[in-house]
Amino acid sequence: MNDDAMGRFPVPDMEELPEDIRERIEEETEEAGFTPNVFPGFAYKPSHFRAFFAYHDALVDDSALEREEIEMLIVTVSGVNDCLYCVVAHGALLRIFAGAPKLADKLATNHRSADLSEQHKVMLDYAEKLTESPGKVEDSDFQRLRDVGFSTEEIWDITSVVSVFNLSNRMATAADIQPNEEFYDLGR
Amino acid sequence: MNDDAMGRFPVPDMEELPEDIRERIEEETEEAGFTPNVFPGFAYKPSHFRAFFAYHDALVDDSALEREEIEMLIVTVSGVNDCLYCVVAHGALLRIFAGAPKLADKLATNHRSADLSEQHKVMLDYAEKLTESPGKVEDSDFQRLRDVGFSTEEIWDITSVVSVFNLSNRMATAADIQPNEEFYDLGR
Amino acid sequence: MNDDAMGRFPVPDMEELPEDIRERIEEETEEAGFTPNVFPGFAYKPSHFRAFFAYHDALVDDSALEREEIEMLIVTVSGVNDCLYCVVAHGALLRIFAGAPKLADKLATNHRSADLSEQHKVMLDYAEKLTESPGKVEDSDFQRLRDVGFSTEEIWDITSVVSVFNLSNRMATAADIQPNEEFYDLGR
Amino acid sequence: MNDDAMGRFPVPDMEELPEDIRERIEEETEEAGFTPNVFPGFAYKPSHFRAFFAYHDALVDDSALEREEIEMLIVTVSGVNDCLYCVVAHGALLRIFAGAPKLADKLATNHRSADLSEQHKVMLDYAEKLTESPGKVEDSDFQRLRDVGFSTEEIWDITSVVSVFNLSNRMATAADIQPNEEFYDLGR
Amino acid sequence: MNDDAMGRFPVPDMEELPEDIRERIEEETEEAGFTPNVFPGFAYKPSHFRAFFAYHDALVDDSALEREEIEMLIVTVSGVNDCLYCVVAHGALLRIFAGAPKLADKLATNHRSADLSEQHKVMLDYAEKLTESPGKVEDSDFQRLRDVGFSTEEIWDITSVVSVFNLSNRMATAADIQPNEEFYDLGR
Amino acid sequence: MNDDAMGRFPVPDMEELPEDIRERIEEETEEAGFTPNVFPGFAYKPSHFRAFFAYHDALVDDSALEREEIEMLIVTVSGVNDCLYCVVAHGALLRIFAGAPKLADKLATNHRSADLSEQHKVMLDYAEKLTESPGKVEDSDFQRLRDVGFSTEEIWDITSVVSVFNLSNRMATAADIQPNEEFYDLGR
Repeated sequence: MNDDAMGRFPVPDMEELPEDIRERIEEETEEAGFTPNVFPGFAYKPSHFRAFFAYHDALVDDSALEREEIEMLIVTVSGVNDCLYCVVAHGALLRIFAGAPKLADKLATNHRSADLSEQHKVMLDYAEKLTESPGKVEDSDFQRLRDVGFSTEEIWDITSVVSVFNLSNRMATAADIQPNEEFYDLGR
Repeated sequence: MNDDAMGRFPVPDMEELPEDIRERIEEETEEAGFTPNVFPGFAYKPSHFRAFFAYHDALVDDSALEREEIEMLIVTVSGVNDCLYCVVAHGALLRIFAGAPKLADKLATNHRSADLSEQHKVMLDYAEKLTESPGKVEDSDFQRLRDVGFSTEEIWDITSVVSVFNLSNRMATAADIQPNEEFYDLGR
Repeated sequence: MNDDAMGRFPVPDMEELPEDIRERIEEETEEAGFTPNVFPGFAYKPSHFRAFFAYHDALVDDSALEREEIEMLIVTVSGVNDCLYCVVAHGALLRIFAGAPKLADKLATNHRSADLSEQHKVMLDYAEKLTESPGKVEDSDFQRLRDVGFSTEEIWDITSVVSVFNLSNRMATAADIQPNEEFYDLGR
Repeated sequence: MNDDAMGRFPVPDMEELPEDIRERIEEETEEAGFTPNVFPGFAYKPSHFRAFFAYHDALVDDSALEREEIEMLIVTVSGVNDCLYCVVAHGALLRIFAGAPKLADKLATNHRSADLSEQHKVMLDYAEKLTESPGKVEDSDFQRLRDVGFSTEEIWDITSVVSVFNLSNRMATAADIQPNEEFYDLGR
Repeated sequence: MNDDAMGRFPVPDMEELPEDIRERIEEETEEAGFTPNVFPGFAYKPSHFRAFFAYHDALVDDSALEREEIEMLIVTVSGVNDCLYCVVAHGALLRIFAGAPKLADKLATNHRSADLSEQHKVMLDYAEKLTESPGKVEDSDFQRLRDVGFSTEEIWDITSVVSVFNLSNRMATAADIQPNEEFYDLGR
Repeated sequence: MNDDAMGRFPVPDMEELPEDIRERIEEETEEAGFTPNVFPGFAYKPSHFRAFFAYHDALVDDSALEREEIEMLIVTVSGVNDCLYCVVAHGALLRIFAGAPKLADKLATNHRSADLSEQHKVMLDYAEKLTESPGKVEDSDFQRLRDVGFSTEEIWDITSVVSVFNLSNRMATAADIQPNEEFYDLGR
């Protein structure tokens, strides 16, 4: 694994990792063709690695949202939080899942400058507010989400993606996890 | 379970929950003497329930920090994010684990007004910064943590607790999970 | 008087205080059963002590608001300003005057998470705005207060309570006036 | 008295005011040559009028600061809070007391652009911080004030002026008290 | 030229300036009766001087707005950005062009406290928003400008004045360009 | 020219533009291989077009900075201001001039996550501060720039680039100028 994956904590040796962590990293490496740095990064503490990726897997595998909507939320939130790893890595995923090679740069910079449906505009306005001022969310915010057609489960899932990436952005920025070079160009 | 546990999503019926979720809720209920509302709240989506509490358990069970420090971090972060559930529920835990009946109210309001060791002051300054402006964390923040004696693993754990409760605060506030009445007075 | 009443200015000796200040402190001590630290704190400068408590007395004795509403405003504003003394001391008063043992913790953390009447929600939204961005108050804010039924005098009184506690919060935090231990538990 | 003194509350009739309020207003009118609008404004509620001006009088009559420093603080704080009445009325007072016809416009706009002594720069930096983020004041702020030569009593007085004008700015802006035309040009 | 025109860069010698710059400065001096410090300031770099004043000239000479509206925008924006030079110099111009000796002090402090037409209130609300949070401007802001009667060209011109003075405010404050003494009193 | 170049103002017909504007647009089109949308955008008002590009040309043609440094400043400032056009178009220029295909994405998201020299770190910290809170710039900021080796002229040029792009970002975002598709991939 890449010693430069993370700037502020030591990257563990692959051989010293527990079996399950190693297997997951191998699978991810096989799938992507390279080892996304978030894996060696979180492997610094295996118990956290397991919980973090369990949450991530739940968010994408058990969702009322389209995968493309999940990545739209992640890129927007990561842009608000100025998180380089998440903007670049999930920018690549958004390009791929949405089949929209420009969308990630738009959302990471300013979702108001992207040409979005009214429904997605409201979704990302909510994501921005829940990220910037969580204590100010109130009933009218939920009403607006309902008014553009989101179901209760979809609102839960939107809230969960935003919340988990408020975790993820803080870990990646503080640990200084660097995006792999490959991510910058994937799906363009 | 209490139908009023959560204001913005329906609370699931205990009987309809998967076995493992039900068991965990029963254990927690037995331990606390009541069912903390975060459990029926997160049970709205079992896959998220499992991941969230796995992360929580990892944070407290596999930590280089004292449990009391973990709760100090949680209460401080939750105060910054104006999260009622987390301030009240973890305020109770902090009173109990620290054996300090006034500390939670101090940290939830303003850690600068609490009589803290230099080390804990620096820890909570960092927690506040990582919560309020995650993109502005830089090497000098880590240096300050090291200067007051925190090890690399402790800094990882501090960062993780702050990050996970930036998730937790957003879920609890947006879902309007209400603190159980019991929490307000525990440990006073 | 308690030498630890205030962290950043010397607490005066009771015997050296002017007669009227001493009398007021004795009355307050008798009423509360202890000497609330704000009294020895402000006694540092008797002319300020007299003016401050004259204002405070006018606010509670000559008001179109219920006492409980006054304390709701104080606790909310003090929460926004992160003022430990005022949150804890007026939290106790709110519990007592409202007969609502949980309300203070809710308002100090986030009035949006408290189950308020529409009228009180609007009142506290205004209190928050006048505290956070006084220059942005405008006619529409007054209209909203009128729309939920507040009279002109009530709006004056709300504005006055918010304004005086923007004074009070700054004095108490800067002087580091510590809440008496008794306040934390009163009325719970 | 001028019916337009205040935009959001009715200005009381001079004849209906209590004797002591009327006398104070007459004295002020005689001294200034016109009736500063803050007097008819606060006369809306005589009990508040008495307390407010008692505090104001204490601040200027019983102070370790020069009157010119008091007005420097007021104008700076009122500029931060965007309070028109206080910027204009106390701007006039600052011009007069400091014998410095340009200083008020400088401080109301940006104290960093005024050519200040190091001591006054530190004083106004503290005033700005206590106004903008009162909860973040800490020991190091007091140390900085001490380092440039302020005594304990002077620091109390600085803190008091800043705090009282955080009250005053909110009352004047919310009530829409308009500066008298005379103030704009006095002392230029 | 005045060596004190600018605090953080050297003021060039008049004789060493290119002919066209010298001529422009002479014209301005003749017109004003003194040399406004922004001219010797920008003369530090002639190529920037030319471009800056070409933009300024275009804004005032080729506009669908009244000159008085242009100066209202400038004073409001400069107040938000705390720019002393622009508040004082354009305050003078506003007093002169609007024939309104108090308006500049009102707008520099808080446009909400000035007695404006609905159209100008909306114009200055937009100016404030575009200055404070440019990334949050959206279609509804343009709609509001249209609703109070602004044409497409007027909206372009408003946007341009606000944008150019976001440049100008930053140059003047960072370079510490001081307002000439004459400006403070012109037009009062 | 592309009718979709700008969302909130009409794009002028090429044939109706003044000769000099048309020539400049033709030159730019020839050089880039496409017409960058900022040209038809600003052509809405030819007098502004001329001034804006004169300023831009002065910034890049008469500078003590390397072109690569100019583009680093622009991309960083545009990221802070959430300006899509400028992030994408100048991102392309930065990739080309710096020969660094990843640098633009790093600076647009968070310059603290880029591996910069100490000198460039200080330069971009200053750019961020001058953008976010221009009124708080003070002598110590200039001292820091000098300490890492910037000359007086370089500091002027840095300040100018930051200031002009605070103009440019506001125009582009408010007018909704869309980045040409070509820019997204240039230089990757």
